[in-house]
Amino acid sequence: MRVPPMRRPFLPALLLAAAFTALPAGAATRLEQAAVVRDAALAKSEAWPMLADLTTNVGQRLAGTEAEARGRDWAVKAMKAAGLTNIKVEPFPLPVWTRGAESAEIVGAAGAETGGTGQKLAIAALGYSGATPPEGITAPVVYFPDYAALEAAAPGSLAGKIAFIDHRMMRAQDGSSYGTNGAVRRSGPALAQSKGAVATLIRSLGTDYHRNPHTGGTVAAPGTVPIPSAALSLPDAELLARRLQAGPVSVKLVSTPMTRPGGSANVSGEIPGRVPGEIVVIGGHLDSWDIGQGVIDDGAGMAITLAAAKAIKDFGKDAGVQPRRTIRVVFWGAEELGLIGGRAYAEAHKGENIVLAGESDFGADRVWRVSSKVAEAGLPLVAEIGRVLAPLGVAPTRDNGAGGGPDVGALGALGAGIIDLEQDGTRYFDLHHTPDDTLDKVDRAQLDQNVAAWAAATWLAASDDRPLRTK
Amino acid sequence: MRVPPMRRPFLPALLLAAAFTALPAGAATRLEQAAVVRDAALAKSEAWPMLADLTTNVGQRLAGTEAEARGRDWAVKAMKAAGLTNIKVEPFPLPVWTRGAESAEIVGAAGAETGGTGQKLAIAALGYSGATPPEGITAPVVYFPDYAALEAAAPGSLAGKIAFIDHRMMRAQDGSSYGTNGAVRRSGPALAQSKGAVATLIRSLGTDYHRNPHTGGTVAAPGTVPIPSAALSLPDAELLARRLQAGPVSVKLVSTPMTRPGGSANVSGEIPGRVPGEIVVIGGHLDSWDIGQGVIDDGAGMAITLAAAKAIKDFGKDAGVQPRRTIRVVFWGAEELGLIGGRAYAEAHKGENIVLAGESDFGADRVWRVSSKVAEAGLPLVAEIGRVLAPLGVAPTRDNGAGGGPDVGALGALGAGIIDLEQDGTRYFDLHHTPDDTLDKVDRAQLDQNVAAWAAATWLAASDDRPLRTK
Repeated sequence: MRVPPMRRPFLPALLLAAAFTALPAGAATRLEQAAVVRDAALAKSEAWPMLADLTTNVGQRLAGTEAEARGRDWAVKAMKAAGLTNIKVEPFPLPVWTRGAESAEIVGAAGAETGGTGQKLAIAALGYSGATPPEGITAPVVYFPDYAALEAAAPGSLAGKIAFIDHRMMRAQDGSSYGTNGAVRRSGPALAQSKGAVATLIRSLGTDYHRNPHTGGTVAAPGTVPIPSAALSLPDAELLARRLQAGPVSVKLVSTPMTRPGGSANVSGEIPGRVPGEIVVIGGHLDSWDIGQGVIDDGAGMAITLAAAKAIKDFGKDAGVQPRRTIRVVFWGAEELGLIGGRAYAEAHKGENIVLAGESDFGADRVWRVSSKVAEAGLPLVAEIGRVLAPLGVAPTRDNGAGGGPDVGALGALGAGIIDLEQDGTRYFDLHHTPDDTLDKVDRAQLDQNVAAWAAATWLAASDDRPLRTK
Repeated sequence: MRVPPMRRPFLPALLLAAAFTALPAGAATRLEQAAVVRDAALAKSEAWPMLADLTTNVGQRLAGTEAEARGRDWAVKAMKAAGLTNIKVEPFPLPVWTRGAESAEIVGAAGAETGGTGQKLAIAALGYSGATPPEGITAPVVYFPDYAALEAAAPGSLAGKIAFIDHRMMRAQDGSSYGTNGAVRRSGPALAQSKGAVATLIRSLGTDYHRNPHTGGTVAAPGTVPIPSAALSLPDAELLARRLQAGPVSVKLVSTPMTRPGGSANVSGEIPGRVPGEIVVIGGHLDSWDIGQGVIDDGAGMAITLAAAKAIKDFGKDAGVQPRRTIRVVFWGAEELGLIGGRAYAEAHKGENIVLAGESDFGADRVWRVSSKVAEAGLPLVAEIGRVLAPLGVAPTRDNGAGGGPDVGALGALGAGIIDLEQDGTRYFDLHHTPDDTLDKVDRAQLDQNVAAWAAATWLAASDDRPLRTK
């Protein structure tokens, strides 16, 4: 979809002056510097050419595949080009899941004399789901309006059946409906399997009405070989529901993914700080789902944070200043398959003093709110970030319980402070994990607003000395 | 996409009264009757349940296939249920084209050492296009910004190449950009073939940015075996164009459709008139493309015109009146492959006195204008139709050169008068010939507005005696 470009915010000098009243000595300089970094990034960030290059010349980057490896090569080059140093590629093991053939078809009521109409259903197999035989399986479909209904199904009641979970996800700026419905995809297949199901179909965790199913990760019960599971696009889920209202329906399902041992890696690079040993981590995830081109999820997060680092680097060069803390940009691998890169990264770096961490992983639309999870002594820094981001249309919150993006969760659990620049997710789940995750969906002005917000926030955090870690 | 429902039009009595001034004797009665028919249809038409049933229980209806035959069975039953009589199924021969396997992939520059990135392109083979070998073909792509550029290519210059026509179609209420760009799809492949191309890719004739290519018919040069040809979705066309800007690109194309001898049929049913031998034809086309569900193209046209006939039938029963002229509802077969049903129908019925004909085949959004092509003596009838449709938000035109829908073109060429209830096509080419042609795209209030317009217009034409034929 083409969206109207966002208007550049107007930054009256008086407003900025007001923001600098009643600040501790030295803060005004840091805030003025942050405003310069912000405005330079807003006027001309390098995020768009980075994102266009990545998604045009690399494309999708499914975790553990050769495509993700090409993404890492791209990342190393892009970090070098942005002037980062100490660039590292840190491998970790990964069960690699790859999609096979996939199709689904309504074949009519089981045993019905007339047979079915052969209506095809648009599906996408879910990550780590199991395989049907090459010729597929045909089984009656049992309808569940939501996850709770599936939970209530009697043990064994789904033997030989395909469970269809038709829960609905709602559009929300903060993406909260993904949180409340996520279990349907992640745990629904294992729950259905525990009751005897031979396969699971879910209504996509999505908000668009296109024939684009939303794939995503699943979690198998320990010690089980997972059953085949796939998402239906919303029009297909509604067709199947209408057919089921009229009577019994069977579906023929073909899905032949494979899982094999393999590996992925995290890529990182730094702007060194004046004082060794204090690190601010920002980044996005490098892998993407295979059916789109990995643009809003999460090429945008990589481009935004790398362009923010580049803006800081350029500012430092022009102004002859260096951040106090080291700024490290991390591109995590294998996020989509269960935050595997983020967990590996936290484990490998648990001896470091990562004072603050934040990930951009909610598309390319504007940042609308800043939240955090930092030590109480660090809250004034978060307030300063709020002041400098306000002209970008970013609201502060008093929420000091932020998650900060999927891959920094493990760092946060180890005590890193967390910063969350929350993006407008109103249309994120129209595109998330679908074939429609393509470059044309990005509004360049909003992309640059993200860069400006990350550059200013990161400068403020890296030029500061207040404690931020929560433990 | 879910659209906000249209508000029901407000029909002040004064406005209606004004519409009846200065009319010939008898006209007021006919117009009052038409208004009753119109308002009854608007309040509760049967189009939605018809369309939901057709598209849920039959689905796509590719011309010449078993699915189209099931569509005919549905049509016969639906016409009977609506109270039509003299129901006929009239077969005609058809070269039947069916889609095979299809895929496309950017494989990098021809002979380039690095190879490509394996980016997959979403494609749909075009109707009557030829086949690649099962393993596909790989060839360099030559870029043409539009049809004129392809016309200008030197003879033989495309030998061994894939022609890519990247013309752009614009959004327009009247769909006019389809008219000006239609040659790209219909004739582009044959033109590229004449210059030596081994395959053709076109940017879809469409206005949406989803990974849904728009299929459609092509016309081969006489005596040739057509080359493979396919449409790219807009995001894929733009990706390919970006890759071509950076340097030479080859594409691997697999497309294995088949064409075989077969047949289709037209289905018709009637509300008999008081005076035998004068016929008003309304209808839609029965076949659809295979990749969607045949909802806006053209299940809607069938449902709208059959529900309009049902509304007239119900009115006649309640009011004890019968139309003067016979109203015949025709569902044409094999429209999508080149108006083959419409031409067969005109040929088979050229001895009949079809005084007026119109087809609903531009989606399910509201009628916004009425135009015609009738004898001068019939223009006052068209003006009456304009008066009665005005409260539905329909504008009259002085345009007496209307086409009236694809399948009535051949009837018009033989002299039948033409009526065109023009629909708002602003979003039609977001959906046209794509997988996204599904029931959820229909706004029921706008669908019913169509029924009301067709019911009133058809009543006025069938209860009239002025000559309408142009020859």
